[in-house]
Amino acid sequence: MKFKNMKFKPVNVAVLGPEGTFSEIASKKFLADECINGNFVYCNEVDEIFELVENQNVSFGVVPLENSIEGSINLTIDCLREYYKIVEIYKDIILDVRLCLLAKKDLEYVSVICSHPHAIAQCRKFLKKLNRNNDNRFKISTVKSTALACKIAKDDETVAAAAAEEASEIYRLNLLFKGINDYKSQTRFIVIKRKFTDANKISGKKISLIFELENKPGALYEILREFSEKDINLTKIESRPSKRRLGEYFFFLEFEGNLGNENTGEVIKNIKGKVKFIEILGNY
Amino acid sequence: MKFKNMKFKPVNVAVLGPEGTFSEIASKKFLADECINGNFVYCNEVDEIFELVENQNVSFGVVPLENSIEGSINLTIDCLREYYKIVEIYKDIILDVRLCLLAKKDLEYVSVICSHPHAIAQCRKFLKKLNRNNDNRFKISTVKSTALACKIAKDDETVAAAAAEEASEIYRLNLLFKGINDYKSQTRFIVIKRKFTDANKISGKKISLIFELENKPGALYEILREFSEKDINLTKIESRPSKRRLGEYFFFLEFEGNLGNENTGEVIKNIKGKVKFIEILGNY
Repeated sequence: MKFKNMKFKPVNVAVLGPEGTFSEIASKKFLADECINGNFVYCNEVDEIFELVENQNVSFGVVPLENSIEGSINLTIDCLREYYKIVEIYKDIILDVRLCLLAKKDLEYVSVICSHPHAIAQCRKFLKKLNRNNDNRFKISTVKSTALACKIAKDDETVAAAAAEEASEIYRLNLLFKGINDYKSQTRFIVIKRKFTDANKISGKKISLIFELENKPGALYEILREFSEKDINLTKIESRPSKRRLGEYFFFLEFEGNLGNENTGEVIKNIKGKVKFIEILGNY
Repeated sequence: MKFKNMKFKPVNVAVLGPEGTFSEIASKKFLADECINGNFVYCNEVDEIFELVENQNVSFGVVPLENSIEGSINLTIDCLREYYKIVEIYKDIILDVRLCLLAKKDLEYVSVICSHPHAIAQCRKFLKKLNRNNDNRFKISTVKSTALACKIAKDDETVAAAAAEEASEIYRLNLLFKGINDYKSQTRFIVIKRKFTDANKISGKKISLIFELENKPGALYEILREFSEKDINLTKIESRPSKRRLGEYFFFLEFEGNLGNENTGEVIKNIKGKVKFIEILGNY
């Protein structure tokens, strides 16, 4: 992507590829918001993006964090846990997800409908109905990304892809149906970058952190009490397995606040005394 | 499965198919524990199993709830939310997941490694190493179940499946590698049945419930306080999107207790006054 009148060298941004994914669309929105000129580095997996950020091969990485229908992206939360010392959340971007059915020719040539499992899950009702009205001739197939489905559809007229409208231009596919998701859906992406400093951003409004509890009754309650007493609104709490044994979790938590604020600082200080481990992932 | 000396008519049990899935292995364990004779009805999806239980086509359904590495199975938690009026949790079964690499012939014929996405995720390190030692010739492919991967491998010597050891007999596949998961892993399955009565089981030790909060600061804290004050240990808490808009969740919560116990009854009563919606899914 190019912007006229820009003086700065383009930055490298790692996104989920190939060209035309929602991850890339979110990145374009981020670059436009920040007036940065960027080159995309396409990755297969979320953990590859974290690796590129860690090794400073890219300035930013853009990964999905949660979707309003499918919930959190587990691999992203697990990577935030794994890379917490090196990587921080710089910003988040919320994108409306509007899926379309795209194919090289017409629907009559199509026998397979292909997309990312989350995209398939989000238009399950549409696909059921489409199958009912067409002698159940469509097989459903899942691949790693909506854009990869388009790449396959580009070379095979029997395959239709459920993907972003933007992908129809990139892969020269026909728009068979627009807005095929069963529910309105949004995905929240995060922009990650390498952690260089602990300096707080004055403008930050949201704080993301991870922590692990001592295994005793009331441990989580003790943490939430700190927020409640200061009237701080939690916007997200998610548990993920510690990967050690069943029933052991770490938590990903988000709340409204700025690290420079006295109340917030006190909450963080109090929590630190009550957990096995805690790390602030970003204030943005 | 047949048991000698059994007098009762076999019951129908819906499981994820095809034959040889971990879901079926868990069901066999359940039937053996209860000394019930059962016939399996193989389903493609978790929601199909809930439908069969709802329509009384089967007496029980067995679905995965969480894995120690991959975390909760979102579709199961979403189905518990959707079918809460009709379906209850009758029991849970914890299974050690030990993955093996199975193929029709030897490794030298194999070019594709195929399994369920969670199984692939659980042996990511093994597969990376295997690829490194074999000129990166293995493509990774994901399908709906570990057993379906075996079914494909049975007919195609170029495909190896990551699946349960039990599947090697069923599909007559060679055991190329045993115990290929990167971490020790367990999956917890739940046995669901149709809700007929609100009667409490005297022997129940664990309670599962779902609830939705009012959207105000401290709402979750207010709920957890009830448990903390009675010194009740929460064993699991999980948030899932309400599917209405980003940032709105319902909660799936588990704790140690019996509904007949006075303390537990009081906690439930107090919580009822503080939530938009609550439903007990089972006491088992």
